[in-house]
Amino acid sequence: MSAASDRPPTVAEAGEAAVLEVLSRPGQAGSGDPVGNGDDAAVLGPAAATVVTTDMLVEGTHFRLDLTTWRDIGRRAVAQNVSDVLAMGADCSRVLVALAVPGRTTMDQIGELAEGIHGEAARSGAVVVGGDLTSATLVVVGVTAMGTLPDGARPLRIDGAAPGDRVALTGAPGRSAAGLALLLAGHHDGTLQQAHRVPELPIGSGKAARLAGASALTDVSDGLLRDLSGMARASGVAVDLVVEALPVDPRLGEAAAALGLRDPEAQIVDWILDGGEDHGLLGTFPPGTTVPPGFTVIGTIREGDPGAVFLDGRPRTPGGWDSARGAN
Amino acid sequence: MSAASDRPPTVAEAGEAAVLEVLSRPGQAGSGDPVGNGDDAAVLGPAAATVVTTDMLVEGTHFRLDLTTWRDIGRRAVAQNVSDVLAMGADCSRVLVALAVPGRTTMDQIGELAEGIHGEAARSGAVVVGGDLTSATLVVVGVTAMGTLPDGARPLRIDGAAPGDRVALTGAPGRSAAGLALLLAGHHDGTLQQAHRVPELPIGSGKAARLAGASALTDVSDGLLRDLSGMARASGVAVDLVVEALPVDPRLGEAAAALGLRDPEAQIVDWILDGGEDHGLLGTFPPGTTVPPGFTVIGTIREGDPGAVFLDGRPRTPGGWDSARGAN
Repeated sequence: MSAASDRPPTVAEAGEAAVLEVLSRPGQAGSGDPVGNGDDAAVLGPAAATVVTTDMLVEGTHFRLDLTTWRDIGRRAVAQNVSDVLAMGADCSRVLVALAVPGRTTMDQIGELAEGIHGEAARSGAVVVGGDLTSATLVVVGVTAMGTLPDGARPLRIDGAAPGDRVALTGAPGRSAAGLALLLAGHHDGTLQQAHRVPELPIGSGKAARLAGASALTDVSDGLLRDLSGMARASGVAVDLVVEALPVDPRLGEAAAALGLRDPEAQIVDWILDGGEDHGLLGTFPPGTTVPPGFTVIGTIREGDPGAVFLDGRPRTPGGWDSARGAN
Repeated sequence: MSAASDRPPTVAEAGEAAVLEVLSRPGQAGSGDPVGNGDDAAVLGPAAATVVTTDMLVEGTHFRLDLTTWRDIGRRAVAQNVSDVLAMGADCSRVLVALAVPGRTTMDQIGELAEGIHGEAARSGAVVVGGDLTSATLVVVGVTAMGTLPDGARPLRIDGAAPGDRVALTGAPGRSAAGLALLLAGHHDGTLQQAHRVPELPIGSGKAARLAGASALTDVSDGLLRDLSGMARASGVAVDLVVEALPVDPRLGEAAAALGLRDPEAQIVDWILDGGEDHGLLGTFPPGTTVPPGFTVIGTIREGDPGAVFLDGRPRTPGGWDSARGAN
């Protein structure tokens, strides 16, 4: 028994109430909602329009416990959902978490996970208003993210792009994919690796796009070409991309060199065009609107086969990630 | 290739877009929301107060594929979340689903699952407004359920019970636990087994309790005594239960007989007091209020050790289910 007392208790030893207390942090500053944590459901105050999305992060599919930390799992689970709220032109205000973990998970690990969840929520301007726990043979973090739109505000749909609109993107695509390649090759530390573990969200940019008059907005989760093609298909338009206009993180070149690739240039282009999970925002801006700071114009919407994407005039089929099939 | 075409395609073969189309049924009558399925997030119309909860159903923990059907997995995942919305005194109006399945899952199975999800949502008066898909080594169905409360309506919290209130319950507890015992013993068909596969929700009873002036309400998911004790602890009160007043489904006796138990009476009492997953609503009603139809009065709230529960005057420690530890 004395040996056992030297290690942190497990979830199975601590019990549900103790885990939920760590996860939901009932003592923290409230959200002002009528009912927060600890009840059957949360109750949120009045809203003109509520944005809501849900998504799971699954061990073995989205992360490996030997390549990331519990804190970063929590951050990423929140970030990928916040990203979808931003992509409607809203800011995220509330986060709910449903967690499945093996009983052997330690309370220290739960504490780190909670730190990641609450830290990323706070970074996004949101509070955690609900939590649920279950046991499982692997770790699954389900997150629901919510935001509100002011009275009369128009949500930024994925199907609003029109011929003549400029296409613009936040951030530099391909960082997460390059980071994963480095991690899998045994290079554990670095900016790209961290960009894979937790995407850096352009907080405020979704709202800025809405106020600027964007016609469509989505987040890049499955790959730039794939998500751009999806937006163009939903909008019934085609896209001309200008390769030279694509923002390139110089670290992609360093990564290709570190990996000793035979054709580093081709790999860099693949990372940029088809690498997923960067969670940049991809928007279209009609003539006469001003593209907000943080966005880089990378092409133009035109009439054509719905969903078709052209790179410097040449058609290109998206690769990227299919959540049922895996990498294409 | 000709042999392969005789079997239904798998999720991995059909791809994400095809799966999401089946899951979200974009063609069905809409909810009137500004943005429904197919975008980064759903956008819901104006609300005075929004009730929201999220919970996962995990293969191996909550269900076994050999003991249930895909349709019933979908129904149960929705029902257990709707139950938490009812328990705030609201009706459920919207459901979001995050699904993880192995790539070998067939599109026929996805179709059955979708039927269960949409059928149970419709039964609850709700529509499915969002879906997400990921691959995993086991099946996880994450559901977010939402409802609204009218302007000025008071949500039914878990901590509002006060001395003198009557304690009342919908349905007959222990059915799900008895059904599981029958299933595990190889008796696959029957009312109790189906009650385990899919709880029968008292739709409308949460709202009725609110309109009747209930002081507290929760749903019984972990066991009658356990959830009642939790409500009493949150409210700082004790509970006197009258054993004779507890509603007993006569099928529990038949189940105990079919299982050939040595002490059937003790097992029946255990199922009723500590069996989880019935998802009845448990409420407290102050003096002067009328307990609504569908509720059975089973005891009284009194001053005492917060969370203490007495059966005909004798203290009893709750068993039930701890989501971190398992059965107590």
